[in-house]
Amino acid sequence: MEKEMIQHSGGLDIVEGFFTRGVHCGIKKSNNDLAIIFSEIPAAAAAVFTTNRVYAAPVELTRMNLEKNHHFQLVVVNSGVANACTGLRGMNDALLMSQMAAREFNIEDPSLVAVASTGVIGDFLPLNKIEIGIKKVREFYPHHPSSIDTARAIMTTDTFLKEKAVTFFLDNQEVHLAGIAKGSGMIKPNMATMLGFILTDAAIDPKSLQKALKSAVDVSFNRVTVDGDTSTNDMVLLLANGKKGKTVMSEMHPDFFIFQEALNRICQDLAKDIARDGEGATKFINVIVQKAKSESEARIVAFTVAESPLVKTAMFGEDPNWGRIMAAVGRSGISIQPEKINIAINGVPFVEKGMGTQKMTRSELRSVVQNKELEILIDLGLGDASFNVWTCDFSYDYVKINSHYS
Amino acid sequence: MEKEMIQHSGGLDIVEGFFTRGVHCGIKKSNNDLAIIFSEIPAAAAAVFTTNRVYAAPVELTRMNLEKNHHFQLVVVNSGVANACTGLRGMNDALLMSQMAAREFNIEDPSLVAVASTGVIGDFLPLNKIEIGIKKVREFYPHHPSSIDTARAIMTTDTFLKEKAVTFFLDNQEVHLAGIAKGSGMIKPNMATMLGFILTDAAIDPKSLQKALKSAVDVSFNRVTVDGDTSTNDMVLLLANGKKGKTVMSEMHPDFFIFQEALNRICQDLAKDIARDGEGATKFINVIVQKAKSESEARIVAFTVAESPLVKTAMFGEDPNWGRIMAAVGRSGISIQPEKINIAINGVPFVEKGMGTQKMTRSELRSVVQNKELEILIDLGLGDASFNVWTCDFSYDYVKINSHYS
Repeated sequence: MEKEMIQHSGGLDIVEGFFTRGVHCGIKKSNNDLAIIFSEIPAAAAAVFTTNRVYAAPVELTRMNLEKNHHFQLVVVNSGVANACTGLRGMNDALLMSQMAAREFNIEDPSLVAVASTGVIGDFLPLNKIEIGIKKVREFYPHHPSSIDTARAIMTTDTFLKEKAVTFFLDNQEVHLAGIAKGSGMIKPNMATMLGFILTDAAIDPKSLQKALKSAVDVSFNRVTVDGDTSTNDMVLLLANGKKGKTVMSEMHPDFFIFQEALNRICQDLAKDIARDGEGATKFINVIVQKAKSESEARIVAFTVAESPLVKTAMFGEDPNWGRIMAAVGRSGISIQPEKINIAINGVPFVEKGMGTQKMTRSELRSVVQNKELEILIDLGLGDASFNVWTCDFSYDYVKINSHYS
Repeated sequence: MEKEMIQHSGGLDIVEGFFTRGVHCGIKKSNNDLAIIFSEIPAAAAAVFTTNRVYAAPVELTRMNLEKNHHFQLVVVNSGVANACTGLRGMNDALLMSQMAAREFNIEDPSLVAVASTGVIGDFLPLNKIEIGIKKVREFYPHHPSSIDTARAIMTTDTFLKEKAVTFFLDNQEVHLAGIAKGSGMIKPNMATMLGFILTDAAIDPKSLQKALKSAVDVSFNRVTVDGDTSTNDMVLLLANGKKGKTVMSEMHPDFFIFQEALNRICQDLAKDIARDGEGATKFINVIVQKAKSESEARIVAFTVAESPLVKTAMFGEDPNWGRIMAAVGRSGISIQPEKINIAINGVPFVEKGMGTQKMTRSELRSVVQNKELEILIDLGLGDASFNVWTCDFSYDYVKINSHYS
């Protein structure tokens, strides 16, 4: 790797050969609610979808289209209505939405269109508004792309927009990789748990692209949990249009790891932003479990702690109540030895050999949990495996946002 | 069953041969924090303990004592400090607490004493205060028993005391069965998830008593969840002193089912009170899953829905957002067919064949979820098995209570 990876401010606009734009079309009262990502040519595509068995119509349509072509030329997304639990009519609406977008952008084959939706479950798509939105975007094409407007259009309860971009060299050629994401509630791993759209002008074959995305998602979005709820609608989509690629690269290429690294980084940065912006979050928390017998056991403990309402409310209240972390470890279901457990937060010991540390006063511990970024390190003292999960605290605002959503 | 079971107001006082009393000894700033249950003679005993692998010293001591004697003559309980994650010193403190109580009540063998604690994890027991408390209780003996004071002494964040009592006939002999419990947070099944003390003056052999308790707990306390967190300290203890029994009854006795029914009822009534009094609860919710392929699958779905923060906050906000129930069913991990699912709340259809009902308006649905008691009936349409879970909604006050607890 002769040249470094450069991180940019901004988002999708940096990637060549794509046009992206978001608009307001009236599905939501205010704020952008419809976006399109358009590629000059069909782009190699990869995707990871929600594991929820109740999945929305757009998830089903996009999965089918991907399996057929392994390429997409356009993505049309709306927020406000999820088009989930809408039966055959929902499936037909998703299809009509893809056809409207294809027609407007002169794409002959509508199966080259990916559709995504996020919002309230159970309502039908307002197709007339969506058509207005698509036409509005078309008016901006090609001279007025906007990653920011696109990122805004996929937000629901997000409080800040999430976009990331990097430039790096692949096979001696400068390429770009950028992504946007939305998260907030119903965030729990096993994909897709949110919406993410990642674009690159590198040239990668679809099969290698899919492997790279799966691998990146496993170390990023699948390590985020806000409330343990997994959505019906979520997907992460990766498009590679090859605009800056000399030749199509496969996973066998010696430079492929550079692409993987860049992709991991974009996905991880977006994933951390999603945890940081969890509904009502006031703190970002990285739960690291180490010295577990296996990675799967470390994973179970990390998620049990990261999803414990008692741990999350204690962190919100800046209460150094480490007993709740111990209790969550204990109920996680794996075999542990309490007397071997050490817990540190931001490097400060809280628990040593299963008991509260004698080295720190309670007010010293309290000052540690007053930080806005917390790293909870749980050492099980049993083996060599580790796993980490990103989450946030649990505040009044989580309840406020979620008790009056639909 | 020639005579009916009679439910009484009041609690433990009705059971003959037991003296129970709670007092304030200064572990907590105010409110009772120490209680004793004393039996004139050693009583046959049964218990169910927390499944949390981080269990407190009193849990360990009480389990050891029970295995040794299968009888208890005295129970000493404190609230305010959990004596969990306290290592060898914690174990020794629990032992000292049992010895103090034994000495004060002239019990030669301290292993006939059960010890229970609830409160903050990690702090050591203030033994001097506990000794004062035990002596205070002794002064009330034998003329001033009080189930109410006892029930109050085991409360932490509970907002109302929980006591239940019934009278019934066993082998043509009138007997009594009564219980108290505390719950509130860290409530999740697989026992014990809370503290419960149940007394009877019936005569039952310890082995049959243990079977009866296990069976009763499975249909009561193990069906309650407040937040999915399981405590380190919880136990349900059942004592039968035989004061009103002609002969010792075993599970082979034709009347044993009457005892089991009475015990189930006491445990279920206490369990429902615990759900009703979940931290910050404004609604009692009974989640029933039916037509599942197996009871274990029904159980998984019921708990996933009952523990979903998104479902619980929607119920708090009286938002008829059934999509969150569908999403929780979908992510529960079992195989389902969304188009076969029907969901009704308080008998009113919300979801039919996986889609929102067309029969009711949104405002009609909203008026249903405005009830204080909700029954969410989820029909999976797959088989014949069912399971139900009692829970509560998730309010601002849950966050308030839990962010400033220790």
